[in-house]
Amino acid sequence: MILPAFYVDDVIKNAIKEDINYIDEATAFVIPEDSVTSARFVSKADGVLCGIEIAARVFTLLDPKVEVELLKKDGDEIKKGDLIARFKGKTQALLMGERTALNLVQHLSGVATQTHTAVKLAEGTGVSIADTRKTLPGLRAMQKYAVMCGGGKNHRFNLSDAAMLKDNHIDAGGGILKTVEKLRRHIGHTVKIEVETRTLDEVKEAVEAKADIIMLDNMTADETAECVKYIDGRALTEASGNITLENIREKAQCGVDIISMGSLTHSVTAFDISMRIDK
Amino acid sequence: MILPAFYVDDVIKNAIKEDINYIDEATAFVIPEDSVTSARFVSKADGVLCGIEIAARVFTLLDPKVEVELLKKDGDEIKKGDLIARFKGKTQALLMGERTALNLVQHLSGVATQTHTAVKLAEGTGVSIADTRKTLPGLRAMQKYAVMCGGGKNHRFNLSDAAMLKDNHIDAGGGILKTVEKLRRHIGHTVKIEVETRTLDEVKEAVEAKADIIMLDNMTADETAECVKYIDGRALTEASGNITLENIREKAQCGVDIISMGSLTHSVTAFDISMRIDK
Amino acid sequence: MILPAFYVDDVIKNAIKEDINYIDEATAFVIPEDSVTSARFVSKADGVLCGIEIAARVFTLLDPKVEVELLKKDGDEIKKGDLIARFKGKTQALLMGERTALNLVQHLSGVATQTHTAVKLAEGTGVSIADTRKTLPGLRAMQKYAVMCGGGKNHRFNLSDAAMLKDNHIDAGGGILKTVEKLRRHIGHTVKIEVETRTLDEVKEAVEAKADIIMLDNMTADETAECVKYIDGRALTEASGNITLENIREKAQCGVDIISMGSLTHSVTAFDISMRIDK
Amino acid sequence: MILPAFYVDDVIKNAIKEDINYIDEATAFVIPEDSVTSARFVSKADGVLCGIEIAARVFTLLDPKVEVELLKKDGDEIKKGDLIARFKGKTQALLMGERTALNLVQHLSGVATQTHTAVKLAEGTGVSIADTRKTLPGLRAMQKYAVMCGGGKNHRFNLSDAAMLKDNHIDAGGGILKTVEKLRRHIGHTVKIEVETRTLDEVKEAVEAKADIIMLDNMTADETAECVKYIDGRALTEASGNITLENIREKAQCGVDIISMGSLTHSVTAFDISMRIDK
Amino acid sequence: MILPAFYVDDVIKNAIKEDINYIDEATAFVIPEDSVTSARFVSKADGVLCGIEIAARVFTLLDPKVEVELLKKDGDEIKKGDLIARFKGKTQALLMGERTALNLVQHLSGVATQTHTAVKLAEGTGVSIADTRKTLPGLRAMQKYAVMCGGGKNHRFNLSDAAMLKDNHIDAGGGILKTVEKLRRHIGHTVKIEVETRTLDEVKEAVEAKADIIMLDNMTADETAECVKYIDGRALTEASGNITLENIREKAQCGVDIISMGSLTHSVTAFDISMRIDK
Amino acid sequence: MILPAFYVDDVIKNAIKEDINYIDEATAFVIPEDSVTSARFVSKADGVLCGIEIAARVFTLLDPKVEVELLKKDGDEIKKGDLIARFKGKTQALLMGERTALNLVQHLSGVATQTHTAVKLAEGTGVSIADTRKTLPGLRAMQKYAVMCGGGKNHRFNLSDAAMLKDNHIDAGGGILKTVEKLRRHIGHTVKIEVETRTLDEVKEAVEAKADIIMLDNMTADETAECVKYIDGRALTEASGNITLENIREKAQCGVDIISMGSLTHSVTAFDISMRIDK
Repeated sequence: MILPAFYVDDVIKNAIKEDINYIDEATAFVIPEDSVTSARFVSKADGVLCGIEIAARVFTLLDPKVEVELLKKDGDEIKKGDLIARFKGKTQALLMGERTALNLVQHLSGVATQTHTAVKLAEGTGVSIADTRKTLPGLRAMQKYAVMCGGGKNHRFNLSDAAMLKDNHIDAGGGILKTVEKLRRHIGHTVKIEVETRTLDEVKEAVEAKADIIMLDNMTADETAECVKYIDGRALTEASGNITLENIREKAQCGVDIISMGSLTHSVTAFDISMRIDK
Repeated sequence: MILPAFYVDDVIKNAIKEDINYIDEATAFVIPEDSVTSARFVSKADGVLCGIEIAARVFTLLDPKVEVELLKKDGDEIKKGDLIARFKGKTQALLMGERTALNLVQHLSGVATQTHTAVKLAEGTGVSIADTRKTLPGLRAMQKYAVMCGGGKNHRFNLSDAAMLKDNHIDAGGGILKTVEKLRRHIGHTVKIEVETRTLDEVKEAVEAKADIIMLDNMTADETAECVKYIDGRALTEASGNITLENIREKAQCGVDIISMGSLTHSVTAFDISMRIDK
Repeated sequence: MILPAFYVDDVIKNAIKEDINYIDEATAFVIPEDSVTSARFVSKADGVLCGIEIAARVFTLLDPKVEVELLKKDGDEIKKGDLIARFKGKTQALLMGERTALNLVQHLSGVATQTHTAVKLAEGTGVSIADTRKTLPGLRAMQKYAVMCGGGKNHRFNLSDAAMLKDNHIDAGGGILKTVEKLRRHIGHTVKIEVETRTLDEVKEAVEAKADIIMLDNMTADETAECVKYIDGRALTEASGNITLENIREKAQCGVDIISMGSLTHSVTAFDISMRIDK
Repeated sequence: MILPAFYVDDVIKNAIKEDINYIDEATAFVIPEDSVTSARFVSKADGVLCGIEIAARVFTLLDPKVEVELLKKDGDEIKKGDLIARFKGKTQALLMGERTALNLVQHLSGVATQTHTAVKLAEGTGVSIADTRKTLPGLRAMQKYAVMCGGGKNHRFNLSDAAMLKDNHIDAGGGILKTVEKLRRHIGHTVKIEVETRTLDEVKEAVEAKADIIMLDNMTADETAECVKYIDGRALTEASGNITLENIREKAQCGVDIISMGSLTHSVTAFDISMRIDK
Repeated sequence: MILPAFYVDDVIKNAIKEDINYIDEATAFVIPEDSVTSARFVSKADGVLCGIEIAARVFTLLDPKVEVELLKKDGDEIKKGDLIARFKGKTQALLMGERTALNLVQHLSGVATQTHTAVKLAEGTGVSIADTRKTLPGLRAMQKYAVMCGGGKNHRFNLSDAAMLKDNHIDAGGGILKTVEKLRRHIGHTVKIEVETRTLDEVKEAVEAKADIIMLDNMTADETAECVKYIDGRALTEASGNITLENIREKAQCGVDIISMGSLTHSVTAFDISMRIDK
Repeated sequence: MILPAFYVDDVIKNAIKEDINYIDEATAFVIPEDSVTSARFVSKADGVLCGIEIAARVFTLLDPKVEVELLKKDGDEIKKGDLIARFKGKTQALLMGERTALNLVQHLSGVATQTHTAVKLAEGTGVSIADTRKTLPGLRAMQKYAVMCGGGKNHRFNLSDAAMLKDNHIDAGGGILKTVEKLRRHIGHTVKIEVETRTLDEVKEAVEAKADIIMLDNMTADETAECVKYIDGRALTEASGNITLENIREKAQCGVDIISMGSLTHSVTAFDISMRIDK
């Protein structure tokens, strides 16, 4: 997994503390401390797996001696009934970690699966499907990782690592040309400039300003195609705004380089994975 | 808002740090530091509002002088086009906080709205709609608060404040009766005991064990009704497992006291609210 | 130990930082880094042990290679002179951790021991001895764990996991009946309601309101007995207020289910355990 | 108060989080959000006050608008029935903070009061009463502050700011002389060296080594007096080990400069202060 | 100041805790709590100011009522003897914050001043002077902000927001062309690719790979000029490696777009500013 | 290493998070996860090593299986070309940690090396070279450790562990005698008192007040010598203020016990150490 361990551990410890404020009443008093068992994670649907190493980490944080056997890895397509992983260790640790582990892997596999669906719909058009900053607080890195596992690409991680000029910036800066010029005087040479546009006139100004990326925001397919044709490779083109699984293919066929979708991370359906403890 | 400020602030600060690792490139270099403006939050759909005080807190944490005017409050039903709030303050603070504020209020209003839908479907049956521990890591308190705003009830907050005996506990404890007895020797007098059951025989044993709450897990409507009839008020009854908006009314009519739904918090569609900055 | 490791580790790390702001001057400059020795924890009094695994964790956090041999475990009755544990590892780690480890095990064994004394005094009456929220800031989970080790029961952990209505709530809510009714409309089904009462009239109203638990606050033994008789099993009964080792048996004989004592955690005498380093 | 605000705030926030994991069930649902009331802190015993500014901070952290009127200040001797402070603000904030505020002020006043008792017993002998590192984890700064409020002096705060050589150090270093010499080669010029001694021979060696402070550990009054006489002002003298309120005056009369007592902080009886909310 | 307040506050609180572990002994016992005074920050050298708002924040965090009057602002050129700021408030707060405030403003003004020197030396050549990731742990954002105040530009903030291929990556990836291609398949469209080169042959390969930025590492002025000529605007060019104030102008005249210097942040001479308290 | 692991780990984790906000783009996508390699740290200058165990910890925190072989240890004098350490482990971990590890070891070796230079210049005079509180925020413990590795001594760590009376304290306290007396009534017996003086008259008053340490601030060599002669061993003497490598020997020959230099930690030139990855 390319996510650094310290980030993952922080999220997991926080989640475990949410779920166990003091003790796990049922487990502490009913399950003997030395009881050892094994558990399996099984897929209950078809989709793309993400977060299985994170789920495993939940258990090993609760009991470093838990043995982990991963039969599927992040990014794998999985089918209903597939055995994903086996864990063996203290029954107490397995029960205490179950909910937190499942909450993480189900959410992240949900993100990966719906990203994968979008990617498949755009297949063959050459377009990249990207996420946005419309993520759930505290989970951005994990969600963006899940988008990658689903075959998507990551848009900028935050407001610091790329500069996007929206209408409010452009109004304050006195138009696209002047605003880009002002911005360029200050930003570092590794930071790309993206300009949000709504009309062909704005696109023309953005091209003149030598924007690295031009966002075509909330345009129809025809408008999008016209703008892409005008830009003609002088900037990367990104379609955004109300893109759904229904209209994604139409947008993808307009020739844009990137389609960005907030729903990949802001409206996620948990992917059903169950944990079964061996008797 | 009944959520303590310190909890809310921790989540918000973490989210802002995710979104602004260093500086907001576009805002820092284009928007004058002394520029002041006002912004409006407008609903773009019908539903139940949740998180507007939290969204306001995003802005006042970035600039304590931001003026907040709330026209709707958490728990209010809102319509498409409704003006929800006005904020006036530094343009930089409004732009830097926009995404974080919207991410929070859109997610929480999404939870409140789908809870409200479930509650409406069960209206008149006397059943309570409750959440579960299937929440998103780091957001449990906010999500459970949103469930309340949508008219739902909160199930236990974590593994510490109620004891639920699942099959693994019961197997380890030697059956329902013995396990409840063992548990009761240890837990405090403020902790309720809930027993998960799958058959009428298990229900009978749970009643005999004087469980406070009996969960009827994954039963058909008929089985549920039969068990509720048997229990006859000797314990609270909770239906759980694969309950959807399609089958919730049928389940609600079985006489159970509570229906708990993981989807209220694990599969949330963001509720569309937009921020418009006044020119 | 049923306390999760992450909670214990947080408290210990904080304590070590308090005790070693920078370096342990004497140890750093006098004890060779590769010096290895062994140490023993010995009881210097009679009582109940609590916190020995926590004390061991102090040493293993400072040096993961410290070997731990526990001869007594949490909850064990120990006598003056008993050998409790042996630790073998870097002399530097043993010396740097000594004070923190002792501070923890002495305080927690103090809690466990005085709980045990109270439990013994009430023996045979069927009453449970419970703690309160009168704990030392930052140490609640450990102190409540120590109460359990001493044979006591845990009252609610915090304001979130049970609802106790005190006079201020009842005044604001318009009497016991109305207040309980108001509360019940909102709280989840896993949360018990306890009502604080001072007179038989209040007790009658609490019974009518179907409170789960009725606290008989600061009553005489006779008043307590009268109230318990009136309640007659329709609610759990809890005696509270100025209960001491002198009057606990009298209160316990009144038939109440639970006696709660703030002094178990707010007024603790450290239990004397010493660490001896082998020459 | 001489304790920096940030330290106090960290302890308080941690304590509030312990006490309110999610919401204060009773207060959230029964007390109207806009209800305002006033409360009084009243002493229920005779002693020395400590922590009233800290208690006030609990309330202002929960509601910055709470008005605080302090009638007594830290270090004041108070009598049973004395009005200590008045607070006026949101009823919800007053109720949510009550337990945390009382836990803090009762514990710290307990420390201050028993320190004061010890100081009074030694009055006129010229001895200083000092604390130790036998403090409760996470509360050292507050406890040491309370010792000062009670008229005591603070021993070293931690292992970094003074160097005490105990028997284990001295054994490893090859006797007192050699060990002090070794230590002196490394420690900074602001760090005092204290040597623990058990016999007059050790005292003689410590004097020869020019220790800044000589601890006379667990000696009888006669032995103590003999050692003090020998030292004759060539080092500060500190008596330590099993000093109680019974034997403190005898020890104080031996001519030592300082008596250090672990019980000031490790065995604290909460000082009774109550909060009364005005009807 | 464009740095978000929460980042600045975290660094300051950490620094204050380092400097005041418990109490400020001298101030707590000698300066009356109600004493109020004013202090001035005065420059003792010529240079560029950075960190004065941060220094002011040190005082307002210790006492929110400290009045701040800034006569110079970050980025201003200042002369020896210039009055920079006036602070008025509690004497205790001014004394407790003095060292931390000065440590910050002296270090950051040191960074800004030496950046300014480098920028001046390259003036007229059109080159930008940029920092690197060779920053001091925990201070990166502040140091990069100081570089900007001195007229420099920021290189990438971290390993996440731009991708630089060094020799190890290129070896592992099978040459520049293959490695860039591999990388491009995965990275988002907002991330620029920089390739480190040492020879003209590598430069040619980097141009063919369409790298956004080509680093000319440790080349002589002649080699640099030759490479820049070859690249001819097809990529941004960055000279790096052992660039000093002595050779910077020569490098700047080679036509490169950017010169990056680790010494701007890794080898900083504190800029002398003194705080004078008015008698 | 005498610095406790928890302190070191906190600084390192913070530094890694600064450097890897999300993922290391280049490494994540180019270097195979299972690739293993070895790297060497080589000195590129002559000086004193400090921080090599800390640098090693960077790698083992990123990958606990990294094998560490240290050929030089903290405090060792090293020459240009010396092999300092070898690390073997995951290539990804080595590349991700490289910059953070080097930033730490280069800065700390810079502190140690310039301390060593100062110590050498004063050799034979019997003077100790000490640091000050003029440290970089967040790095005080590491910097003070580096001073020790370079042969220097540590001045007080913070405002809590020694009391230094500066002119503002003395003015507020009514002169040196009265101020020291006032202070002595409150401070603990382990805390030394240092008085800052500027004239022989002040020195006389400080001697009369029995200050433990007398700072001779910004005096000429002659003035310093005169004061030292007057003090004649009745207090430790410390010269401070504008001491440079040019004038240090002259000051050292004045007979003072300690010379303290802020530049040891506030103006540090990174010591050049490179990491070479084996092909």
